[in-house]
Amino acid sequence: MADPSTAPPLTRASVQAAHKLIEPYIHKTPVLTNSTLDRLASTPRADAELEGTEWAGRTPAKPVLRFWFKCENFQKSGAFKARGAFHAIERLKQEPGWAEGGGRERGVVTHSSGNHAQALSLAATTSGIPAHIIMPTISAAPKIAATRAYGGTITFSGPTAPERESTAAQVQSQTGARLVPPYNHPDIILGQGTAALELQSQIPPPTTLDAIITPCSGGGLLSGTALACHETGIHVFGAEPSFQGADDGRRSFLSGTRIDTVKSATIADGLRTPVGPIPWGIIYERKLVRGMYSVSEDEIKKAMRMVYERMKIVVEPSAVVGLAVAMFNEEFRGMVEREGGEEGWDLGVIFSGGNVNLDVLGELIR
Amino acid sequence: MADPSTAPPLTRASVQAAHKLIEPYIHKTPVLTNSTLDRLASTPRADAELEGTEWAGRTPAKPVLRFWFKCENFQKSGAFKARGAFHAIERLKQEPGWAEGGGRERGVVTHSSGNHAQALSLAATTSGIPAHIIMPTISAAPKIAATRAYGGTITFSGPTAPERESTAAQVQSQTGARLVPPYNHPDIILGQGTAALELQSQIPPPTTLDAIITPCSGGGLLSGTALACHETGIHVFGAEPSFQGADDGRRSFLSGTRIDTVKSATIADGLRTPVGPIPWGIIYERKLVRGMYSVSEDEIKKAMRMVYERMKIVVEPSAVVGLAVAMFNEEFRGMVEREGGEEGWDLGVIFSGGNVNLDVLGELIR
Repeated sequence: MADPSTAPPLTRASVQAAHKLIEPYIHKTPVLTNSTLDRLASTPRADAELEGTEWAGRTPAKPVLRFWFKCENFQKSGAFKARGAFHAIERLKQEPGWAEGGGRERGVVTHSSGNHAQALSLAATTSGIPAHIIMPTISAAPKIAATRAYGGTITFSGPTAPERESTAAQVQSQTGARLVPPYNHPDIILGQGTAALELQSQIPPPTTLDAIITPCSGGGLLSGTALACHETGIHVFGAEPSFQGADDGRRSFLSGTRIDTVKSATIADGLRTPVGPIPWGIIYERKLVRGMYSVSEDEIKKAMRMVYERMKIVVEPSAVVGLAVAMFNEEFRGMVEREGGEEGWDLGVIFSGGNVNLDVLGELIR
Repeated sequence: MADPSTAPPLTRASVQAAHKLIEPYIHKTPVLTNSTLDRLASTPRADAELEGTEWAGRTPAKPVLRFWFKCENFQKSGAFKARGAFHAIERLKQEPGWAEGGGRERGVVTHSSGNHAQALSLAATTSGIPAHIIMPTISAAPKIAATRAYGGTITFSGPTAPERESTAAQVQSQTGARLVPPYNHPDIILGQGTAALELQSQIPPPTTLDAIITPCSGGGLLSGTALACHETGIHVFGAEPSFQGADDGRRSFLSGTRIDTVKSATIADGLRTPVGPIPWGIIYERKLVRGMYSVSEDEIKKAMRMVYERMKIVVEPSAVVGLAVAMFNEEFRGMVEREGGEEGWDLGVIFSGGNVNLDVLGELIR
């Protein structure tokens, strides 16, 4: 992958340029609204529901919310990750000397057991470039099958981070393939930011968004969204699961120091990674993200069920943490009540993906 | 409901008139395509897959299929049934003397435990008309809750048809409410036909549909579709589950005599009813439907899984029987191969609804 120092500046204009580059390859995903979910979110929670939470005994917030759901579950490869992956590939193709030096034949490499593996396989093979994917032997069978179906060549490794990295280094030295990391690179961040850019253009005038909330794991989507919203007046928020410390971004945000290890088995399996240093610079140091909020496993399941029942679309658990924050996090809801008043907020919610494991879906929505 | 003898003639023009009447109330649901499903359907099945079926040992068919999915799972109330219900209500409102005679206050009544109950509740209460719904006491809790949420007033009855009918008659005599049957009425049939009418207008020129396939239960959707396609050159097919004789339409079609009782516990729980006499007249006697095909429970589950995995949308088992026929029924596939040749067919597939019981969804797609 291109040396980060040669990457475009981390600005809204660079997100716009990224969008131009990847437009021929990605879906312009639809933006859905849902009056039932708006009504539910704009109804104060019952006192009884707050019992046992940190907000027990408080007066439930009365926000007014109108949702605009950006459906990246309908994106190619089933997740927003296709945006960053296609952008990384297009940028590589433009890199002086890359093709001439045999880069096209050497291909690209990454280690991932999730959506990035599938997205990179698709993006690379679309341009006839080999994609080498390092996956732990313990990966779920459907993910292995999906990565192969998108054309990736899989090399299995041990499950720990050092084992995966050493296998990746081995494959790299054997093949000469270029490493494409899942989030900690400007080209990836700029690609992911294109979802929020499109979303802004899909809101029918005279409505404009007051805020956008996105899931946060490594921080590529959240930091890209922050760039896409820079100087537009749109507030940007991040959402995380709280289970077993997966809310590293929120905790880092509060302490001012980036937490760099997370070990959580949250059902939001796309959100188990700590925020990377380049995203962190945008999210926190440049103060382009206003706040981070977290939700429980049960709240994620409830939000999943709402989406399946009311919107009739398939989303993965990681995709609904933003909706869960807007539905259940009293801190967030109180802020919308205070700032939005009677008029309320038009809130963009990025549904990040739809690659749910169908073999366990029953348990996730029961 | 209006006396059938005063209903509009059962023609394509009447479906167009129905569409004008209900357009302000219903969603123009999207039409989706999916290149992966096209590719899968256009690949001959493996010999091994045909073992144990009636086509064992035959050469697998090689049809070329391009699907156009009409997504009535995104329709109001979660199913195409809203079309017929809104049409029935609009026609009632136009009936001379109905309002003056206190019809609006007396309301409407039906017996249904499924999508018609929810659709009629929504359609009636949208116009401020009470909806009395007779449901068997054994109905699933989510269906009862959904019918109430749409504004219906529920009266419980015993589970058998005579018990439901006698409770309905009782409610009718107490309230003076007008009976709105689920399928055996011209106004319902014309309303349901509007889905296929819209679908035709949503295909981008120069493409035109070669055929449309819809699920068949009481026959309202299938016969309405047949009217909507009359003299357009579009072939119309019906799809049913074969389990425990739920393929009454297909068997009636073969014998020439309408079967009027069915007792099947197929997972396609919207397709357990025999074809009604008025739909039968259109489907068979007027020869507006070309053929009926059936699929097994396992084939329905496989088609469900394909839709969740590849299209990322929520459909109920009844919705996918048409897709299952195109994927797995060698008789249908052989016909497409013979008639479509190398060019193949553009096939409209009506996804009838998305009201799946989320508590059992896990078992349906595993």
